[in-house]
Amino acid sequence: MKSIGGLMRNAVPVVLLFLVAITACTEGIAQTDVAPLPSWNDGPAKAAILEFVDAVTDENGKDYVKPAERIAVFDNDGTLWVEYPMYTQVLFIFDRVKALAPQHPEWKTKQPFKALLEGDMETVGASGEKGILVMGMATHSGMTAAEFEETVLNWLGTHKQSRFKRPYTECVYQPQLELLAYLRANGFKTFIVSGGGIQFMRPFTEKAYGIPPEQVVGSSVVTKFQIIDGKPVLIRMPKIGFIDDKAGKPVGIYEHIGRRPILAFGNSDGDLQMVQYTTAGEGRRLGLFLHHTDADREYAYDRKSHIGKLDKALDQADANGWIIVDMKKDWRSVFPPPLK
Amino acid sequence: MKSIGGLMRNAVPVVLLFLVAITACTEGIAQTDVAPLPSWNDGPAKAAILEFVDAVTDENGKDYVKPAERIAVFDNDGTLWVEYPMYTQVLFIFDRVKALAPQHPEWKTKQPFKALLEGDMETVGASGEKGILVMGMATHSGMTAAEFEETVLNWLGTHKQSRFKRPYTECVYQPQLELLAYLRANGFKTFIVSGGGIQFMRPFTEKAYGIPPEQVVGSSVVTKFQIIDGKPVLIRMPKIGFIDDKAGKPVGIYEHIGRRPILAFGNSDGDLQMVQYTTAGEGRRLGLFLHHTDADREYAYDRKSHIGKLDKALDQADANGWIIVDMKKDWRSVFPPPLK
Repeated sequence: MKSIGGLMRNAVPVVLLFLVAITACTEGIAQTDVAPLPSWNDGPAKAAILEFVDAVTDENGKDYVKPAERIAVFDNDGTLWVEYPMYTQVLFIFDRVKALAPQHPEWKTKQPFKALLEGDMETVGASGEKGILVMGMATHSGMTAAEFEETVLNWLGTHKQSRFKRPYTECVYQPQLELLAYLRANGFKTFIVSGGGIQFMRPFTEKAYGIPPEQVVGSSVVTKFQIIDGKPVLIRMPKIGFIDDKAGKPVGIYEHIGRRPILAFGNSDGDLQMVQYTTAGEGRRLGLFLHHTDADREYAYDRKSHIGKLDKALDQADANGWIIVDMKKDWRSVFPPPLK
Repeated sequence: MKSIGGLMRNAVPVVLLFLVAITACTEGIAQTDVAPLPSWNDGPAKAAILEFVDAVTDENGKDYVKPAERIAVFDNDGTLWVEYPMYTQVLFIFDRVKALAPQHPEWKTKQPFKALLEGDMETVGASGEKGILVMGMATHSGMTAAEFEETVLNWLGTHKQSRFKRPYTECVYQPQLELLAYLRANGFKTFIVSGGGIQFMRPFTEKAYGIPPEQVVGSSVVTKFQIIDGKPVLIRMPKIGFIDDKAGKPVGIYEHIGRRPILAFGNSDGDLQMVQYTTAGEGRRLGLFLHHTDADREYAYDRKSHIGKLDKALDQADANGWIIVDMKKDWRSVFPPPLK
């Protein structure tokens, strides 16, 4: 039998071990001792989020939602990262056209490739969404899935956002990173539902947002399975598979998630149907739109913007109980500190 | 300051608390004190599974795979539940045609509806996959997503498998339920990748297999978002969206999961490409096929079967290191005990 002194000497380490075990256990679960959402200013938006999460996680409350049904969907461009003055993926398309031009002599005379290669951005702009789509198809197909992923990662690793001079993957919003983490800590599964390319986002979403590829929904090209030189590969075809924008977003949610979200966060009229669909479900729901009101720290744009137009959603917010998050007022900081 | 006796009295509860904390922590993680896969007989298949899971979860081993990349995909029909003598969803289609016939007088003269309504199964059979598809489209579209889900659940709740006289959702394989749970306990994310309808499976997979709707990949019809009487709804259209079978399976994986699985389990040549794609990836991979060899406890069929034909995969298994699971030899029991 051990002496009293021996037991005494063991008591302190045991207490420490206990604390370590408790700490290990609660990591990833709600950390109630630290105030959540530190980059959000106190105000109606933050209060609405906290109240909603409290309500749906209170097992004894009337609004309780089982963890498996706590699905939260976020738009990407302009909601989780900067989309202004031009969508990151469109800049990627432009750069890919330039990089691939030597292999495509026909682009010298074919619009809108010709205009882009000559730096005539007015003509490129005049080609509209259709022109971007044509160049998108040309640069997002004709390679394997693995080759495309590598190209995306290389590009993201070497290009910077024009105003903030940091990689696009660091032009993510700190308050949203906190919100995503807070939701996950409260048993939510967080998804991206974006008009952007599903395979353009997947290479970076896990590192940037903690969202794994299987929780990313987006637009796609048709893909074909082939065996080439005895190796099975997936070939990206120059054909639209699915457009995950506007009325396509609820469809993308149905196809990929198969369950109506209880929280949806967008920033433009492209997210209108996603938020409508989410908040029309039974029980407690939360719909939010980020309003870009901060020209000093980011950008200010809404009803008449060429990117991320926020117009109908602003008009319909009050009647539907949607929360308009005012970047200037509601966010204490916008970006995370620069990575080392 | 406390007396030595006081500290002593506190030491035991602290140790107990520590044990409680540790126990709480390890719940849901691999339970090494209970032998895994009790319904699997000892043999090469079980040994291959255990060895594979040990290898990819050993942080110090050369085959270690991070939890986020531990993706396991399972076919459904004939791999997780009974598919013989006819796919459950095809029986559902037949019943739906009969139920909807009063609203479709034109079916009285239109094949293969006419034959089915008259009980002429030979003509129905002769209409082949195309005939089934025509009836599938007619019965799987023209309603909202919510209505379709309700119809599926009602049908599954009231129909029983012909031989086993129990609901289809209880004609699931006990050894596979154990395998799914064992993989999840080892950090795997388990997915279904089936030729069956994605929205036909989702209503029951969570309860039957512990697989939530967002981890189910399958065939689909095109869906449209509409606002009807002020309510946003999803309408199922009579148009094929995606066929998640054969060469479609790796494509479905790419679209829905966006990451190449490290384990794939099928039972027919319809799973060949899924297993090829999975096991062609770098690092440790495991491909398995269930061989239905047990006419006494379930069914025996393979190379020439009208359902779940297993032919090419049998020929190619050895050269590729795929495991052929012999139901008769490898499974101690086939079905779970009847539910109360």
